[in-house]
Parts: sequence; C-alpha cells; structure tokens
Amino acid sequence: MLFANIDLLDENLDHRSGQWVGVRDGRIAYLGAEPPAGEEAAAYGEVYDGRGRLLIPAFFNAHSHAPMTLLRGYAENLPLQAWLNDAVFPFEAKITPEDCYWAALLACAEMARYGCVAFSDMYYHMDQVARAALDAGLKLNLSDSLLAFKGEGLADLPVDGENRRLLRDLQSAGDGRIVVDCNIHAEYTSNPRAVADLAAFAREEGLRVQVHVSETRLEHEECKERHGGLTPVRYFDSLGLFDVPVTAAHCVWVDDGDIDILAERGVFVAVNPASNMKLGSGFAPVPKMLERGVEVCLGTDGMASNNNHDLMQDLYLLALLYKGSTGDPAAVEPKQALRAATRAGALSQGREDCGLVAVGAKADLCVLDVTGPSWAPMTNPLVNVVYAGHGADVRLTMCDGRTVYHDGAWPTLDVERAKAEVDARTKRIVGEL
Amino acid sequence: MLFANIDLLDENLDHRSGQWVGVRDGRIAYLGAEPPAGEEAAAYGEVYDGRGRLLIPAFFNAHSHAPMTLLRGYAENLPLQAWLNDAVFPFEAKITPEDCYWAALLACAEMARYGCVAFSDMYYHMDQVARAALDAGLKLNLSDSLLAFKGEGLADLPVDGENRRLLRDLQSAGDGRIVVDCNIHAEYTSNPRAVADLAAFAREEGLRVQVHVSETRLEHEECKERHGGLTPVRYFDSLGLFDVPVTAAHCVWVDDGDIDILAERGVFVAVNPASNMKLGSGFAPVPKMLERGVEVCLGTDGMASNNNHDLMQDLYLLALLYKGSTGDPAAVEPKQALRAATRAGALSQGREDCGLVAVGAKADLCVLDVTGPSWAPMTNPLVNVVYAGHGADVRLTMCDGRTVYHDGAWPTLDVERAKAEVDARTKRIVGEL
Ligand SMILES: [Zn+2]
Ligand SMILES: [Zn+2]
Repeated sequence: MLFANIDLLDENLDHRSGQWVGVRDGRIAYLGAEPPAGEEAAAYGEVYDGRGRLLIPAFFNAHSHAPMTLLRGYAENLPLQAWLNDAVFPFEAKITPEDCYWAALLACAEMARYGCVAFSDMYYHMDQVARAALDAGLKLNLSDSLLAFKGEGLADLPVDGENRRLLRDLQSAGDGRIVVDCNIHAEYTSNPRAVADLAAFAREEGLRVQVHVSETRLEHEECKERHGGLTPVRYFDSLGLFDVPVTAAHCVWVDDGDIDILAERGVFVAVNPASNMKLGSGFAPVPKMLERGVEVCLGTDGMASNNNHDLMQDLYLLALLYKGSTGDPAAVEPKQALRAATRAGALSQGREDCGLVAVGAKADLCVLDVTGPSWAPMTNPLVNVVYAGHGADVRLTMCDGRTVYHDGAWPTLDVERAKAEVDARTKRIVGEL
Repeated sequence: MLFANIDLLDENLDHRSGQWVGVRDGRIAYLGAEPPAGEEAAAYGEVYDGRGRLLIPAFFNAHSHAPMTLLRGYAENLPLQAWLNDAVFPFEAKITPEDCYWAALLACAEMARYGCVAFSDMYYHMDQVARAALDAGLKLNLSDSLLAFKGEGLADLPVDGENRRLLRDLQSAGDGRIVVDCNIHAEYTSNPRAVADLAAFAREEGLRVQVHVSETRLEHEECKERHGGLTPVRYFDSLGLFDVPVTAAHCVWVDDGDIDILAERGVFVAVNPASNMKLGSGFAPVPKMLERGVEVCLGTDGMASNNNHDLMQDLYLLALLYKGSTGDPAAVEPKQALRAATRAGALSQGREDCGLVAVGAKADLCVLDVTGPSWAPMTNPLVNVVYAGHGADVRLTMCDGRTVYHDGAWPTLDVERAKAEVDARTKRIVGEL
C-alpha cells in the first residue's frame, strides 16, 4: 500500500504534513514529502488517499486478559473481594478452551477496530488465545499463568509443561507475531522457589516475563509482612526475576525505592488506568516513574474491569488523570502518553522494530479520520489525538503490512460470529452459575 | 418517527427489550411492547428499524463555554496561571461576535454528533451562541458573564443592559429551546453588591442563575480570606443567590457544610471531570454530594480544557474516577452517572419535561448502535452504555422530535463550513497574537 499525501506523526511523534508512505513486505519501505518514483510507486500496489487522515503508529496493548471479554458487564460495582470471590472466580471456573478462543477473537476484533495491533496477555488456555491472534492477524506475547501456593518448584507445576508445549508449538508462529513469554501471576500466588525456578528458566530460554506487581495496597502490604519487609518489586528482584526483561503490570502502590529498582533494572511498567480506577486500586505513580526514566507502557487489563479494548481511551486517561491527582496541569505530557501507548508497548514485547512510523520499521499503522467536528481547529494534531479524538476515528489498522480493520470491516475475521459466540457462551456460563 | 422493535432505557433507566416508541409534535406520544394500532402508527410517519440499536435519553450538557472551541489544542500542558494569563486571556481578547457564532455552531455539531441536545453556556456575545443553537436545532440556557471588580451595583454594569436585551430578544425563542439565565462568573470576579442585585433581578424576573463555584483551591481559600471565613457557597448563600434556581459549576473544593447547603437549597451542581483533571483542579466530592441528595449534573466545560464536546466521555469519567480516588469500587453507580448526564441536566435547565424516555416527555433521544464489538456480551446494557460504549456509537440524535444528527449527517447545519470557519478564524487570532 502507498499512503499518498498524508499527515503523520513521525518516529519522534512530531507532526509532518503531506507525506508519502510506502509499505512493502510488511515494513515501511518509503517515507518522504515527495511521492516515490513511478516504478517504485507502482510496486507498493494500492494507493490510499491521505486527505483528511492522520497516520500514527498503531497501538500496543501491554497488559490484557483477552478471554475475560466474556465477563464484560458482569458483576459490576462490587467491593473487590466480593467481586473476585463471589463473581469472577466462579465464572472463570466454567470457561472452556473454546470459550477462550471466541472471547479472545472478539477482543482481537475490538483491538483492531481501535487501532491496536499487539497485546501482551496472561491467562489459561493460551494456545486458544494464540489461535485467535493468528486468525485475526495480530501480534501476541502470550504467557500462561503460574500459580504456586504450596512451596512447589517450577517442575512440580503444570505451567512448566505448558510453557514447554507453548514454546515448541507457538514460539515465533505467524512470522514472529506470536511470542511466548513466561509468567508469574503475582507475588501472592507464588512462592520464592517457583519464582527463582521460573527466572532461571526464562534466562536459559531467553524469554521475557509478565507479572502483576503491587496492584492493590493490600497485596503490597501483605507481601511486606510475608517477606520480611520486601515489597513485591524487591521480592522479585531478590529472586533474580529482573535479570530477564520483565513487564510488570499495575505498580500502583510501588514506593520510591521500588521505582528506582524498576528504572535501574529496565523493567517495563504496564499501567492500566481504567482498570485501576474501576476496581478502586488507585493511581500508579506515573509522573514519578517517567521522571526517573522508567519505560511506562499502557494496558487495558481484562474486560471485567475496563470495559473495552479501546486503548485510545486508556491513552486519554493516562494523559488526563495525573493532572487531576497531582494538581499539576503539566503532569504527563501528551507525547509521553502517546509513546506509552505505542513505542514503549512494542519495546516491552521485545519488538524493537515496531511501534513507530519510520523507514525499516514493521508497518504497524493506524489511520485516523480527522474530519470529524472534534478535530477542528487543528492547532495541535498530537494534542487532538490524545485529548480530542476517539478510538472510533480509526479508519484503518495495519499489522505487519496487512490490513486487519478498514472502514467497518475486518478482513481477517468474522466479527458477527465472534459476537454471537461470546453472547451465547456468556449466557451458558451465567446459566450454569 | 416511529421507533420499531427497539431496546431502550426507560424513565428509571431500566432496560426494556423490543419496544415501540412513537414521536409526534416534538414529544414521545407512544411507548409500549406492542406496535401502535395501524392508523395511529401511520400518523408517526417514518419507521426506524430498532434492531441492533438502543434508545436512551439524549444528553444534557450542564456547563460549557461554546465559543472556546476556538482554543482547542491551544496552549496545552501549562501551569494554570500561565495558561490563563499568557494564553487564554490574550486569545479571548481577539474573539469577535462572528467568531463566537462559528465556534458555537461547531460545538453544536459536536454535541449533536455525540447525542447531546442541550447546553448551559456562559460567555460573551451570547446572542451569537443562541443564533448557533437555533440554527443547529439544539436547546440552550444562555447566560452573559457578570464581571464586577470595583464594587459596582448591577445597574452600573454592561451585563444589566445585556441581560434585558437577551430577555427581550431571545427568551423562549425556538419554541422554548432558548432559555435566558442570569450569570455570575465567580466570587472572585464579583462583589457582594452586584451579587445581591443580580439575585434580586433573577427573583423578580423568575430566572435561573449559572455560576462558577470553588473550581480551584486558591479561589476557595482566597474567598474565605476576603469574606470573613465564608466559602464561595456560603458567600453566595448569604447574598440570597440560592433563593432562585442555581447551577453551580465545578464545586471541587466545597466542604461538608457547603454540601449540606447545596443539598438544602436545591442547588444543581454541574461537575466537569475532564476539565477539572486537565487543569489540575482536582476531583469534586461527587460521592458525598450524591449521598446527601445534591442533584449532580454533568458538563464538558470549554474546549481549552477538555478537549471535546463528547459528553459520553465525561459520563465515563464520572462513573470511573471516584472508584479510583476513593478506593471504593462501588462509588458512583452507573445509573447515577447516567442520570447526571441526562435527566439531572434537564432539570438544572428548568426543563421538567425533558431528559427521560417516557410518554409525554419531549422527544430528546439518542440512538446508540450496539452492534460494535465493544457491546458484546450484552450482559448489562446500562453498564455497557456507561463503561464500554463510545459517543461515536450514536447514530441518531433527536431534539424536540427533530433529527439533528443521523448517520454522519447533520440535517440542520453545514459542518464542513463550520470546521473551515473555525480553522481559519483560529489561525487569524493566533496570527494576531
Ligand atoms: Zn491483569
Ligand atoms: Zn466554566
């Protein structure tokens, strides 16, 4: 595809008017203010008229639980423990592998609709989530949840075999779109032996790790009680986990020393503003993290606590809420927020050549319709993207050069079928409860 | 129009499946699970196929400054005083009456696009804002800003003549769509004499009043210093302002005693979560207000601090952020938030027969497309509206029975012209600075 005469946000998220962007073999092969020469232009195939459009890097969702789409709108406005124990856990016990596939496929449809091409996911039946991502044409860093309540080592746990199976069957599937990560659900569902084993396994195999860290105050404080004053960050660090690349989700209650460790060890922090607000967990200290050089990325979390996969809405929250919570209207710059939703997310997934509009990068692109009434005046396009625009302004989403959403259509998947399956499967589960 | 076989949220915001809703003479004339009889059905005219749609009350924007649409994306991420003094005030000094018209018309286009039919506005050149609302087919409670820095009485101020002119020329224009309110910009831009005079004028003329109250901590604390410990709420109350119906915008820093006064005197509180976050003002104590029976309604505020007129986004924030700020995931129920965005807003404008889907009410309606991937499963339609849906899901907006937005088209106005005018006029002003 050749995007013709299109405005864009470049690799520094700076605005450029009237550019030409050629996509070939899944990558951005040309970018310039002049059209490519006639012969080269023809090689890009279809020409996309860029007038009234803004090309930006596609979004990267750094933390999700795609199968939880089944729980959207279920058990709302409850205290956290009642929500978890009386609603979420009993529901989840009824979810089958096939349920996971359809729920993840619907999640993929939603992400593609709103300009997102990649997600880091942790759940069970991750082969089914991979099947959905492969079908949808999206990228996925999958991780099967490690739960170890009784002092088990990694070899004693089903996740060990599952990790090896996932590695064998799915690592690098879909031309590298599928990446198998390791996982530790959280400190409170782990034990030191299992964490150390998992860290060693990830080191040996060259894998990344996804983990929940200090989502709630209770979790943070109880960890300190259990582990001689060690916070979850220090607990994981002491067990060697941060020797491999880690994405730590939430980090709402981390203290200043934790933030220093996260910065020094190069841990990616996936914040989930919608989910953290919805469950009453609080606000992660993002301004401090950014100040100290932590690479902050952005996630939707699961649909039981968000309730949609529109990462542009989370981007809006990220760029907005810290101004309110700190009283500083300059807290979190729009550009920092947009970086979190794009390039930082790609880096957190180990995708060095993704998440930015530059020659040589993977063609992971999002085209916004900027003709709607919320986009005028166009005094500052970046600010309009972050604060005035909507996920629904996405007209085209491209992943590795392949169109996964375009003007109301999903070329890779049957969205009507996915919706109907999820509706029916949710009704079945609710009926069984 | 006859909405056929459509799901809706009724006057209690409870969900009803497969209803028939007939609109005649600007009002809801029929509502039932059965279609109206053949002859009656024909009298409603056009039939709207309700499959895949959800009919909800239209939104009522309880606080805005429509002409400030010119400032969207201008002077972002600045400390409050620099933003106001170095950016907003110099910009505003260049705005002409005709600029106000076009900016307000674009604001109307945006509101209609996102399901909103009415707004309470305070600015200058309010005849131009009324002209825009009349052209767009929307409802407007307009108020010309009272500024009195030098101990003047009302009769000494230009706003006195302006109020009388607006009353004479515009009160009840457009079949009652235009309502002239009185205005006091804020405590810090008023003096006690002018406030008492204005309160007396409003009482005599039977008018409502719009006022900014305790938006920032500085404003709240300085008021107490200036007026012997009186907060803005107590200052206005002591001057008789709350003897008339008042919409108090913001109320971020009100104390418990203030909240009791607001509840007892029946003051409507228009909260503006996006704007209050963006400017670093903080979070209004909405859970406490709701608990004590204050009628909370919802506003977008001006585009220099939001940056769009999508009230559904503010609805989302209202239903989300207090869970985060209080740590209570049950704070602010989805139904309370939706009431604030609809019925409560209508009541704050003195429009007793608006803001709800019921026979006899004005036909102020919003039709959502619920076929998008964010709406499945449809476990809880109300929750999906508040947390999963998007303003962009609005397919039809109706004001007093007249369609003001439908599937990408604005039957009442030329949106391309409005955008172009606002773009050009903004460029002119920025060029003059
Ligand atoms: Zn999570
Ligand atoms: Zn205001």
